[in-house]
Amino acid sequence: MVIDFKKAGGLVPAIAQDAATGQVLMLAWMNREAYEETLRTGRAVYFSRSRNKLWRKGEESGHVQEVREVYVDCDADTILLKVHQIGGAACHEGYASCFFRKVEPDGLRVVAEKVFDPKAVYKK
Amino acid sequence: MVIDFKKAGGLVPAIAQDAATGQVLMLAWMNREAYEETLRTGRAVYFSRSRNKLWRKGEESGHVQEVREVYVDCDADTILLKVHQIGGAACHEGYASCFFRKVEPDGLRVVAEKVFDPKAVYKK
Repeated sequence: MVIDFKKAGGLVPAIAQDAATGQVLMLAWMNREAYEETLRTGRAVYFSRSRNKLWRKGEESGHVQEVREVYVDCDADTILLKVHQIGGAACHEGYASCFFRKVEPDGLRVVAEKVFDPKAVYKK
Repeated sequence: MVIDFKKAGGLVPAIAQDAATGQVLMLAWMNREAYEETLRTGRAVYFSRSRNKLWRKGEESGHVQEVREVYVDCDADTILLKVHQIGGAACHEGYASCFFRKVEPDGLRVVAEKVFDPKAVYKK
């Protein structure tokens, strides 16, 4: 096995980066099962720490991530996915990237526009 | 405090991305002290899980990371740094990025050239 899943309780961080633009979209977690399903299916599968189960990204919203390339870091405990984000937004809040807030001296500032309305997509 | 350091034992993942090219350079960890020193000094400071202490990136090699921008994700538990990497290489193995290995059907393949010789830089 090329990934060291023993660190951090069986979970390693996985960064999703837009394969075309280089924008960092999100960071989530993978256990061995999520990693293997990602490689097998070509769609990003994470492990949800809050729900404690596999999280097939986009299974509710349809905004799946098609995995173009997978990289591993020098310590073999972080994964980098280059993806094509269906729907144009990785963040459940409707932004292209989960990193839509910038740290400034007086606090956080939202620096992106929403791509979709979360209420409409998730029907909540 | 804008970052949720309570998750994962006081440490959150921090992604370093090249501010100019968008290349993802590395992922490391920050505790509150590392985060605050990073903001105060404008240089990336992480927390080394293996050495269990603050890690002022580049303090040995001189390859510091000048922090241009800091972003926080939607859950406020992951940090994205846009940096200028002094020396051109973030990885202690001499590569620009720690993600120099690509996952392929038959294993890992090195897909980058070394920027420096680690033996010369770290004098080991």
